[in-house]
Amino acid sequence: MPGPIITLTTDFGSSSGYVAEVKAVLLSAVPDARLVDVAHDLPPQSIRHAEVVLRRVAFAFPVGTVHLVVVDPGVGTPRRPLAVQARGLGFVGPDNGVLGVALASPGARAVVLDRPHLFREPVSRTFHGRDVFAPVAAELAAGLPLESLGTAIGDALPSTLPAPRVEGTRVRGETLAADAFGNLATNVPARLLGPAHRITAGGRPAERVGTYGEATPGVLLALVGSDGYLEIAARDGSAARLLGRSDAVEVVCEIP
Amino acid sequence: MPGPIITLTTDFGSSSGYVAEVKAVLLSAVPDARLVDVAHDLPPQSIRHAEVVLRRVAFAFPVGTVHLVVVDPGVGTPRRPLAVQARGLGFVGPDNGVLGVALASPGARAVVLDRPHLFREPVSRTFHGRDVFAPVAAELAAGLPLESLGTAIGDALPSTLPAPRVEGTRVRGETLAADAFGNLATNVPARLLGPAHRITAGGRPAERVGTYGEATPGVLLALVGSDGYLEIAARDGSAARLLGRSDAVEVVCEIP
Amino acid sequence: MPGPIITLTTDFGSSSGYVAEVKAVLLSAVPDARLVDVAHDLPPQSIRHAEVVLRRVAFAFPVGTVHLVVVDPGVGTPRRPLAVQARGLGFVGPDNGVLGVALASPGARAVVLDRPHLFREPVSRTFHGRDVFAPVAAELAAGLPLESLGTAIGDALPSTLPAPRVEGTRVRGETLAADAFGNLATNVPARLLGPAHRITAGGRPAERVGTYGEATPGVLLALVGSDGYLEIAARDGSAARLLGRSDAVEVVCEIP
Repeated sequence: MPGPIITLTTDFGSSSGYVAEVKAVLLSAVPDARLVDVAHDLPPQSIRHAEVVLRRVAFAFPVGTVHLVVVDPGVGTPRRPLAVQARGLGFVGPDNGVLGVALASPGARAVVLDRPHLFREPVSRTFHGRDVFAPVAAELAAGLPLESLGTAIGDALPSTLPAPRVEGTRVRGETLAADAFGNLATNVPARLLGPAHRITAGGRPAERVGTYGEATPGVLLALVGSDGYLEIAARDGSAARLLGRSDAVEVVCEIP
Repeated sequence: MPGPIITLTTDFGSSSGYVAEVKAVLLSAVPDARLVDVAHDLPPQSIRHAEVVLRRVAFAFPVGTVHLVVVDPGVGTPRRPLAVQARGLGFVGPDNGVLGVALASPGARAVVLDRPHLFREPVSRTFHGRDVFAPVAAELAAGLPLESLGTAIGDALPSTLPAPRVEGTRVRGETLAADAFGNLATNVPARLLGPAHRITAGGRPAERVGTYGEATPGVLLALVGSDGYLEIAARDGSAARLLGRSDAVEVVCEIP
Repeated sequence: MPGPIITLTTDFGSSSGYVAEVKAVLLSAVPDARLVDVAHDLPPQSIRHAEVVLRRVAFAFPVGTVHLVVVDPGVGTPRRPLAVQARGLGFVGPDNGVLGVALASPGARAVVLDRPHLFREPVSRTFHGRDVFAPVAAELAAGLPLESLGTAIGDALPSTLPAPRVEGTRVRGETLAADAFGNLATNVPARLLGPAHRITAGGRPAERVGTYGEATPGVLLALVGSDGYLEIAARDGSAARLLGRSDAVEVVCEIP
């Protein structure tokens, strides 16, 4: 029977050695762990970008998976280390909003990691990914109950992603992050959109299509992305480049 | 006994989350699969670049390996999804030439993926890598026969790589793609070259050597690359930079 | 019982296909190997950068791990291929200093790889990572004794990293490489530093702190990095950018 799945989402850069150090800790504790890289080349310290990736990925994994998430600009300061359990999956990372998608799930439970005997000794002040989060993620993946990892809390910091604003039939949202194609994820869930909505991004009209290949090349297009949210893109091109940036571009959906 | 090998070749970008979503599908279906990343930071939508990588890699893997290949600019349009079996290996991806190296193998068999019960439901219109190709690759790796995946076809699109032209003892080819060192792969197989051939790239003479360290620093060099094709390179430098581009540079091999 | 761990550290670029070819060789020989990527996007041919990563990572892995290291500008020339055993771990790579961290360990033993029957046939002149180092790393991981891989030598090339200079209470070192945040590793081990040392980098004073979040934003800071060496960084910024470069910046530590 294959071992537990532990995924890794960091801003460490894939060639820094930090990721490998974390994997060394995980494999030392859980030799049969199946390690899956989610992302390591996220923009440094971009909690938002990590959240957009996790929103897409987290609940696609089988029950029992543990997601280790380390985007941690506050490492070494009093920001709290967390573990969260939600919908049968585990999450371990800092209390800075990056675990928001887990915390927002019905029935989510969170603990603050305050059991130093579970940590790697000595705990450095700059690399809790290796010294705090990885050893705890390993224990959670190996079957230790959440309650054994720390003290239950109810005030973990929620997602940093902005909520869309609904004004009658109009929805105002914004772009969140670009993928490798320059396609832009937004904070507007598909369920807020009807077929009559016209969409603009950064004040520019976006052609509504079902898939990229249906659009006029070179113009902005709007579609329901594979993550269930409105996506702004461009056929054979980059919406990020067309708009000059990838995040915080206002998106307006209205019925004319 | 270790599980089946499934490799992944995409232009998704390694930190987008798309790759992890695909892996979640694969591991949900085949928990003991051994996943190997071939490439994820290919130039977006570059079928040619993916083909150059696969030409090098595909048949190095053990019999039974399944190669999942998703460079898919036509996703959501009528382009067909394929599975191919060749030389004991499986290939799954779009019918746009990216599986050309498999299709060109003696005895290759191809099917169009037309069995929706094998797909992830609902099938999005923008992410067949996750919804169509990954679930089918998992079935193929788990042992489902090719014929159970779809209907046999004989007109799958061949490789997009240009063939070299042989004019007497002269061979005309071109560069195809650069690696991280700026070394350029070409479409000229070593078997067309004799020791008397002089080689130019982009009209510039290239020094013929057996390995990089034999060449004069700073000048173009030509050697038989480790993929069995003519390679244009530069010692301690980048041929791509010397030539100003990496693909479609004319390469001429002639006996003076 | 899970198979042996083999890690990979190269400058191949993660999307070149070269890494996958190496993994195909490893998995063909050791089907249950657990493969861990350490780094593939190192600066091309930068032995120094690879050494900085290995210094951090190598001994974090469990006993029995084999580190395959291929930064090999001299491939195909008379530079020797090596295997090293140190502190219960194996190392395989070229004799150019890149295995220095292993060779400097007490009790390290080195052999030159001179048993062609262990190599992949035919051995190319440009890709010993695939044809020489990977097959030998697989044998070492599978349990073949070091002495069966080649002839013992005592003159393998040591680390290329410069040693710090100690002049009374003053220590002169230099920066070695940047990580994804622009934090700079140095060659000054923490044991040479006392709390009274003032630190400059490139002639500019660096604020001494325990972790990033304690520093004044925008100024250089100095701390003991998670690898046990002095690190030069900047809060919410990049020390590499502040200093204009990442390696060979002089670092001076003195007691005023």
